[in-house]
Amino acid sequence: MTAPRIGLTLGDPGGVGPEVALKALAGGGPVPGVEYVLFGDPRLVAEEARALSLPGDFGPWREGLPGGPGIFLREVAAPAADRTRHRPDPANGEASFRFFEAAVAAARGGLLDAIVTAPVSKAGWGQAGLAWRGHTDFLEGLYPGAIMSFWSPRLRMALLSHHLPLSEALGLVRRGPLLDFFRALRRGLAGLEGGPREILVPGLNPHAGEGGRLGREEDDEIRPAVEAARAEGILVSGPFPPDTVFLRALDRPGTMVAALYHDQGLIPFKLEGFATGVNATLGLPFVRTSPDHGTAFDIAGKGVADPRSMIEAVRLAARFSASAS
Amino acid sequence: MTAPRIGLTLGDPGGVGPEVALKALAGGGPVPGVEYVLFGDPRLVAEEARALSLPGDFGPWREGLPGGPGIFLREVAAPAADRTRHRPDPANGEASFRFFEAAVAAARGGLLDAIVTAPVSKAGWGQAGLAWRGHTDFLEGLYPGAIMSFWSPRLRMALLSHHLPLSEALGLVRRGPLLDFFRALRRGLAGLEGGPREILVPGLNPHAGEGGRLGREEDDEIRPAVEAARAEGILVSGPFPPDTVFLRALDRPGTMVAALYHDQGLIPFKLEGFATGVNATLGLPFVRTSPDHGTAFDIAGKGVADPRSMIEAVRLAARFSASAS
Repeated sequence: MTAPRIGLTLGDPGGVGPEVALKALAGGGPVPGVEYVLFGDPRLVAEEARALSLPGDFGPWREGLPGGPGIFLREVAAPAADRTRHRPDPANGEASFRFFEAAVAAARGGLLDAIVTAPVSKAGWGQAGLAWRGHTDFLEGLYPGAIMSFWSPRLRMALLSHHLPLSEALGLVRRGPLLDFFRALRRGLAGLEGGPREILVPGLNPHAGEGGRLGREEDDEIRPAVEAARAEGILVSGPFPPDTVFLRALDRPGTMVAALYHDQGLIPFKLEGFATGVNATLGLPFVRTSPDHGTAFDIAGKGVADPRSMIEAVRLAARFSASAS
Repeated sequence: MTAPRIGLTLGDPGGVGPEVALKALAGGGPVPGVEYVLFGDPRLVAEEARALSLPGDFGPWREGLPGGPGIFLREVAAPAADRTRHRPDPANGEASFRFFEAAVAAARGGLLDAIVTAPVSKAGWGQAGLAWRGHTDFLEGLYPGAIMSFWSPRLRMALLSHHLPLSEALGLVRRGPLLDFFRALRRGLAGLEGGPREILVPGLNPHAGEGGRLGREEDDEIRPAVEAARAEGILVSGPFPPDTVFLRALDRPGTMVAALYHDQGLIPFKLEGFATGVNATLGLPFVRTSPDHGTAFDIAGKGVADPRSMIEAVRLAARFSASAS
């Protein structure tokens, strides 16, 4: 068995990405027996490591050759980037995209089992003329069935839709899209050994519609989709009252809540999983995780960024890569 | 100064209401120097007390006479009620309504500073031919500006709307209703000494609309309402991203989140405040609190009901009654 290979991207050079990536690699994140590859510009890595007094002199990754456990650097040049620009910036936006693009290409080529992406600035990507709204948006372009999911030590959650106005998101709570979602979720979870198998579905309305008195979507759309999925052997149940389904899933690692819109899932997840939450994209031919926070430009360069979420992202990637090997 | 006077209703005789009421009165809930009045049928109270081996022989409340600290019983006859019927039942529904109605009448007449209501069965009320959906619905009929609010040791939250289908609730997120809500909330909070003063408003859409890219309600409705309220001197801010506003309010007792729909508020509240949450109706001429759980027919009569939420409801009523005296 070869060592699982996990790529890490540096993120926006002016944000906390380089800091949490190096902190995670220096301690807490890496699991023995895994090959870690940092995608970034060697100058930026060296400068960040010096500023933090952390190891940063990683040997070059011999892309495509049989690797081994350890930490390596895959050089992606970004001569115009500057780690002291703590704001959205076109050169830093461009650099963070290149790091990510190179890691995705390696994973698509079968050279990596997983990638862990440090935060980028959507505004920086925009200033660099890039059309995507972020990592997940780019990956959805390549893999249309991709699913955004969120993991904390106590709770797991996946989103039916994410960056849509609420009124539009409600329009997706229909039998067809729901059944497609349950199918994609089962496929996405199937490759994760020891991962959740049981999907819990909230209702859309207060008290899950209370028998139709507080809304029709539960009876007309959600329950029929759940029943159709169960007939296909998918382990899914609901609709449950939205305000208790997350309590039902708490500390039950075999369960994942299928949230029907962005904030139905993110409000409880951020409240519960603050500082340790991980974002994972399901439905790709490789594992992709990222910390559940942004570039945090306001605290970048101060050495105070909390690496726990990045550490958890690295651990989750290692766990699921090991099961894939 | 006279002792604050707090009425407690027994709730549905077949649910856990009588149990948590007697447990709360026996320990944990009552504050010295307060006059507590239990509204219920003496036979039911005696039977419940015997089953739980708890005190239940309270002296009669001399309604309208100057009282004093202690626990008293206000008799409300319910000869057809039975505490062993652990299901929705017309006689028990009728009884629970009478206990509540008598306590509300006493509070309206100025004989009580606060009432604490043990859980009733909405289905039981329906079987008894009562039109209201519950306590709050009845109180809203008397006081149209009443607001449903939720209190835990760490979080405080009020609801713009509660029992509406989500698609209808979205229609209330408009300047006019929002401004009315902020005004009513300020009035409701003004009487609570030491209570929250700062209102935090979430957005409706992911990331609070992200400058209009993920929805228009923040720019078109919520922000104008917040600005109009601030111009009137109301301490309100937002719209904040819905998935972080609750973290912002956590452990800051001076703040209350003004949730824009039922589950935006109840999902985080139940996750965070489970077992200790209290429901309080604001905007009445008296204080009204209740535990944040239902009749729990499945565990009624077993002596295992958790009284913590009822205890917190009694404490909150005492705290706010003291400030009103």
